[in-house]
Amino acid sequence: MSHDLTSGDVALMGVPLDLHSSFLQGPAFAPGRIREALHSGAANLTAEDGTDLGATERFKDTGDLDVFEMMGQEPIDRIEAGAAARIETGARLLSLGGDHSVAFPLIKAHADRYEGLNILHIDSHPDLYDSQQIGPLGHGCPFARVMETGKINRLVQVGIRTMNAHQQDQADKFGVEVIDMRNWRPDLEISFDGPVYLSLDLDALDPAFAPGVSHHEPGGLSTREVIDLIHRFKGQLVGADIVELNPHRDPYGMTAMLAAKFVKEIGARLLSR
Amino acid sequence: MSHDLTSGDVALMGVPLDLHSSFLQGPAFAPGRIREALHSGAANLTAEDGTDLGATERFKDTGDLDVFEMMGQEPIDRIEAGAAARIETGARLLSLGGDHSVAFPLIKAHADRYEGLNILHIDSHPDLYDSQQIGPLGHGCPFARVMETGKINRLVQVGIRTMNAHQQDQADKFGVEVIDMRNWRPDLEISFDGPVYLSLDLDALDPAFAPGVSHHEPGGLSTREVIDLIHRFKGQLVGADIVELNPHRDPYGMTAMLAAKFVKEIGARLLSR
Amino acid sequence: MSHDLTSGDVALMGVPLDLHSSFLQGPAFAPGRIREALHSGAANLTAEDGTDLGATERFKDTGDLDVFEMMGQEPIDRIEAGAAARIETGARLLSLGGDHSVAFPLIKAHADRYEGLNILHIDSHPDLYDSQQIGPLGHGCPFARVMETGKINRLVQVGIRTMNAHQQDQADKFGVEVIDMRNWRPDLEISFDGPVYLSLDLDALDPAFAPGVSHHEPGGLSTREVIDLIHRFKGQLVGADIVELNPHRDPYGMTAMLAAKFVKEIGARLLSR
Amino acid sequence: MSHDLTSGDVALMGVPLDLHSSFLQGPAFAPGRIREALHSGAANLTAEDGTDLGATERFKDTGDLDVFEMMGQEPIDRIEAGAAARIETGARLLSLGGDHSVAFPLIKAHADRYEGLNILHIDSHPDLYDSQQIGPLGHGCPFARVMETGKINRLVQVGIRTMNAHQQDQADKFGVEVIDMRNWRPDLEISFDGPVYLSLDLDALDPAFAPGVSHHEPGGLSTREVIDLIHRFKGQLVGADIVELNPHRDPYGMTAMLAAKFVKEIGARLLSR
Amino acid sequence: MSHDLTSGDVALMGVPLDLHSSFLQGPAFAPGRIREALHSGAANLTAEDGTDLGATERFKDTGDLDVFEMMGQEPIDRIEAGAAARIETGARLLSLGGDHSVAFPLIKAHADRYEGLNILHIDSHPDLYDSQQIGPLGHGCPFARVMETGKINRLVQVGIRTMNAHQQDQADKFGVEVIDMRNWRPDLEISFDGPVYLSLDLDALDPAFAPGVSHHEPGGLSTREVIDLIHRFKGQLVGADIVELNPHRDPYGMTAMLAAKFVKEIGARLLSR
Amino acid sequence: MSHDLTSGDVALMGVPLDLHSSFLQGPAFAPGRIREALHSGAANLTAEDGTDLGATERFKDTGDLDVFEMMGQEPIDRIEAGAAARIETGARLLSLGGDHSVAFPLIKAHADRYEGLNILHIDSHPDLYDSQQIGPLGHGCPFARVMETGKINRLVQVGIRTMNAHQQDQADKFGVEVIDMRNWRPDLEISFDGPVYLSLDLDALDPAFAPGVSHHEPGGLSTREVIDLIHRFKGQLVGADIVELNPHRDPYGMTAMLAAKFVKEIGARLLSR
Repeated sequence: MSHDLTSGDVALMGVPLDLHSSFLQGPAFAPGRIREALHSGAANLTAEDGTDLGATERFKDTGDLDVFEMMGQEPIDRIEAGAAARIETGARLLSLGGDHSVAFPLIKAHADRYEGLNILHIDSHPDLYDSQQIGPLGHGCPFARVMETGKINRLVQVGIRTMNAHQQDQADKFGVEVIDMRNWRPDLEISFDGPVYLSLDLDALDPAFAPGVSHHEPGGLSTREVIDLIHRFKGQLVGADIVELNPHRDPYGMTAMLAAKFVKEIGARLLSR
Repeated sequence: MSHDLTSGDVALMGVPLDLHSSFLQGPAFAPGRIREALHSGAANLTAEDGTDLGATERFKDTGDLDVFEMMGQEPIDRIEAGAAARIETGARLLSLGGDHSVAFPLIKAHADRYEGLNILHIDSHPDLYDSQQIGPLGHGCPFARVMETGKINRLVQVGIRTMNAHQQDQADKFGVEVIDMRNWRPDLEISFDGPVYLSLDLDALDPAFAPGVSHHEPGGLSTREVIDLIHRFKGQLVGADIVELNPHRDPYGMTAMLAAKFVKEIGARLLSR
Repeated sequence: MSHDLTSGDVALMGVPLDLHSSFLQGPAFAPGRIREALHSGAANLTAEDGTDLGATERFKDTGDLDVFEMMGQEPIDRIEAGAAARIETGARLLSLGGDHSVAFPLIKAHADRYEGLNILHIDSHPDLYDSQQIGPLGHGCPFARVMETGKINRLVQVGIRTMNAHQQDQADKFGVEVIDMRNWRPDLEISFDGPVYLSLDLDALDPAFAPGVSHHEPGGLSTREVIDLIHRFKGQLVGADIVELNPHRDPYGMTAMLAAKFVKEIGARLLSR
Repeated sequence: MSHDLTSGDVALMGVPLDLHSSFLQGPAFAPGRIREALHSGAANLTAEDGTDLGATERFKDTGDLDVFEMMGQEPIDRIEAGAAARIETGARLLSLGGDHSVAFPLIKAHADRYEGLNILHIDSHPDLYDSQQIGPLGHGCPFARVMETGKINRLVQVGIRTMNAHQQDQADKFGVEVIDMRNWRPDLEISFDGPVYLSLDLDALDPAFAPGVSHHEPGGLSTREVIDLIHRFKGQLVGADIVELNPHRDPYGMTAMLAAKFVKEIGARLLSR
Repeated sequence: MSHDLTSGDVALMGVPLDLHSSFLQGPAFAPGRIREALHSGAANLTAEDGTDLGATERFKDTGDLDVFEMMGQEPIDRIEAGAAARIETGARLLSLGGDHSVAFPLIKAHADRYEGLNILHIDSHPDLYDSQQIGPLGHGCPFARVMETGKINRLVQVGIRTMNAHQQDQADKFGVEVIDMRNWRPDLEISFDGPVYLSLDLDALDPAFAPGVSHHEPGGLSTREVIDLIHRFKGQLVGADIVELNPHRDPYGMTAMLAAKFVKEIGARLLSR
Repeated sequence: MSHDLTSGDVALMGVPLDLHSSFLQGPAFAPGRIREALHSGAANLTAEDGTDLGATERFKDTGDLDVFEMMGQEPIDRIEAGAAARIETGARLLSLGGDHSVAFPLIKAHADRYEGLNILHIDSHPDLYDSQQIGPLGHGCPFARVMETGKINRLVQVGIRTMNAHQQDQADKFGVEVIDMRNWRPDLEISFDGPVYLSLDLDALDPAFAPGVSHHEPGGLSTREVIDLIHRFKGQLVGADIVELNPHRDPYGMTAMLAAKFVKEIGARLLSR
């Protein structure tokens, strides 16, 4: 399970899971499509700061976890184990979802390794539901599950524009710091002490920029704003995920290419340490 | 026809009419698709200021007017009557077009009830043509018809980027205040004395944000800018319409979801009084 | 070959060539689709400064060059000859690609006529490759070919976000002034002494605004930013091209309409002199 | 709950349920889209035998059941109750799914009323799974559930082309008569004694004819073959469903129009008695 | 207006008109798209009987009529005049619509020149309405108008599957020979004495084969069946039209390519005499 | 390179090559998409004769050849070597293109191993061009190259409907047996003595059934007819390819699913021996 990872590496890992989605399946196919976009020849592997992921030996693709077509606790456990096995080598993990339900086990594995873990959560939804029709592992619930572990220092949410009364109660209960979209400005300072995990739900972006997602929530961030945010926030980035790409809504691969762009930008920051 | 409306209510009303369109039919199907998006489960009914349209008893759907597949004066008269019947109860009306030709009778009904009515018109086109191939009720003419009633205090247009010589003459003749897109800035102050009717043509937005319209006119507003405008202009909002959604160009319902977002934001402002 | 052009005219010219594309064919069909959008009735021919291309006698469509389905040096020579024949009348040329390989012969013809020619190159890619799999005339190479002529005063690139090590070497070698997207701000001053040729690759725009291109490169310019740039840079515009529209990725003609918008705005500036 | 139904009526009923789908949600939105197509003005309401559903008083739309966004036993019970309430008036029921999981409660209600009920099941899949990841109510299981009631005289399946070993075992166990697609011929005689329920899964058709379904299974029936089958089989048709339309894969409403066509043809046969 | 036509030529003519459409505009753009497909390089110009339209001098494109964006009698008169001018040279005309309203003036011009003209009308609709909301020139009415001229020997309709009571009355009144789709067999003999005009509405084909039309009417002809019909019916073909291609529903140009195929097959028969 | 293949195995092999395409790139991405469809969970792995490719140990995926983004002789040589290495183990090869240029080296490798090799070529095009703009290895030329080897016993082409004069000359010269589409009947007997290689170009099917190809050629085979042909022709099948899937025209994966269906049916016949 080590994939020959060592400290300083960045490990790409696919998590093809979507049966916890409440509205539309599809994200299980995202890891394959993001890899296709990364290697499509329509773009190169150089991030905007000049880091060339294709030139370093430290950027390693560790393949997909075996969770396709699974539901319930079993895939959640497999994801936690798969993440833990990779990060215990000292490598940093960049996971490709899957729907957002994968964030719970991914963050749990990181919180176990990195004490005082902070989370920067970029999303249109707070994902703090106590439960959904599909159950407490639904893709609208992961940050409730994460906060219940008691191991998270701070959870900062950016891009939120669907807060309702129940989720506001949950945010208050867990002390979540919510930066609503209507109050967000590109020059906001975001700064953490200690390790940071970045969870990037593509529906944080306006549907104009990321049409290939299950939940279109208008009024979101631009691609440039998210790229800036990735490079600009203060803190030590130790792991990340990119979730909720839905290939069923991506006929020209435009949103897969967007996810691939984020792989390059986040990958470059993870490599820079 | 009262739909049990009372003062303080907000009445949703569909206007499935599009045979006055000059380029492409489709908006007659918009009311059904916007309702589908509102109740799709892909989003909730809470506006960004926390108003939950699903929790109040005052947000009432009064159904569609019977104008489907009609042309000429008859549907125009039916729309005026349908609007008048609803607003005479003291309710405020939020109409879902249909093409923009529906704005003439909708605004006429409001001007009859609200003396000194002002109009905030968000659009890429001035819609001031004296006539079109399809006649003087064409969807490029409604604001000429509205101004000819002599009952409008001020007409302010935002987002315009297709002004030609004829329409400039019309704008001059009617004293329309046009804020061209190239001169528009997000921090422009827009302020009215007295009642305001808001007419929102979705093609005011850049096609990136609202691809599902008949006329793509590049260089427009972002979704966030329109949301801000809805909440920020000064004046008493008494009625509104959202027009020109064309489901034939909306394969993933993204623009229907945008319209549903505006239903929530405008609905919240109409409820707040 | 004169098309009755005289000094002061603006000549539209189609260049239906795409066999130098490395990833996806399609741009050979762009000229026809841009004309279709210009005359579709979904928009008018008035630019945002009020110049009506439909009202002037000086805006002339000189048709398409006979290069369809060609590869290699022959179409390149034909393009150079076609451009030279038009501009020697004193007319200014607005060419519609085709893929970006057409820029090399187009600019060569201009550099021969206009001493000290400057280039404003708006693109996501520097297009400075020495060669590609498809050869040295590939659509990733034209600005290397152009700079090798030794006739260019300055080459300024805006919108770049795919710079890699090889192309950075080329940029250094040729003295290219690159304004990376991450350093770009809407209020940057861009100013030239002497004649300027504008080469506009539609993939400079974010894919949200220009989805109909072969290479989706997220994080780009907005349509409004490009319109502003067209009107705002200082210098004497003497010729221009709009390239890389790919109709195979433009099911609703939205990107063709964007190209048509740029025809109007660039055409207006070329006419204003 | 009677909807003023009487014997001899045909009752249309929507069943917006899809959380039992194993691969892709969407069919919950089908009832609305089929009604939109029926009344779109792009077609009329006359079946091919001349029966005009728009002219008779006996074709009644009884609306949608309240099962949207539900999972598990509760919606199943509601469907059975909704069907029973309608058919006990003597009306015949034409249900619009929803995914195929709705067939179990629909057929159960019919089997309780019509002794010796036969089923004509047109589908690419046998839907005889004992259970699925999503549970025993999954949309691949309904005919196992139906046969377990012991109340079905004969189950005849047409169009099948995905039989695997487990489902063949189930077919053998339940005595299902399977007419594989590769053995099917348009002139096959299909004949029943007694009452017949028709369950039409749109993926029985080749994806060329019905692209708007979750499971594309190539090599299927043509539209004309299904129309002929509807009119030609011998037996007394007492109820029917049309399921598995997925609007997420139906950008131009072509498959919704196909479903509407079947509403007319099946409706005409149900009315003819 | 002669376009240098002489007897024995086949003249292609575009008729970009669609404001008589009742449901969806678009066919005005069809002539341009069919030419694009014919010359796209994705196919050659050889018909299935070996006739190469690209090798003969007798196949001449006479361009588009100037009727774009017109409504009412004026474009109808222009079409009749344009057709008459071409066929009086002895050339045979192959017109590309436009919606089906163009068939009335086209056939009128032919009936004036060819005494005892017969019509083979391939369509899903009888198009015999006395009038529509859009008026008596609507695209559902042309064959009523044609029969009222009293100059037609026989009108034979193939592919019909939307006959309603009103149109059946009209068919009876005019003595139309209707071959319903449900009674059609590929080996039906269709034979005329004297000159024949062929009017091919693309919605005669099943939407599987011709998705790019305004009215999807399932259960239609296959492409192969229509090709066979074109070559197999007995009689002297003297003119033809191909109508109702709607590019707004043809994202990959598949239906434009189908129309181009029919141009080749009909063109070959017109040339063979 | 043996992939642990042994005699009796069937080896799946991807050939991601498309720079020899004359009209549209894309097929290089086909192998990945066909595998995605095969394992998508939207279908199972059982062929229509009951052979379950998922249950046997003899169906082995040997991955993709390293030819992505290559042009000219080098990838052709690699393909021949890759095929030869696999078939020399006694395994039978099922290759997934790529454009049709891959057939030349694939068949060459088979002709070297199987003396007296016959070819069953299912296609809309004869692919017998002596050369193309893109050169003699273009995807319209492979069967000219194959026949020039002098090692082919018989080449039988089915589905052809684009024969022009040059290709007819080539067919005559090489003694190709062409069964034109217009002469094809489902009950035609096709029979070979000795080993047979099957080359299946997806554009042999009508675009209704296989829209996801670069060249839409209307009037083709149905999916059912091709399935029947695969199972029904007489002779010993020793190898096969499935080519010309173009994912850029396959927004819902429908044509990828079609290719996956053919993998199952051809795979079953290759396994049955």
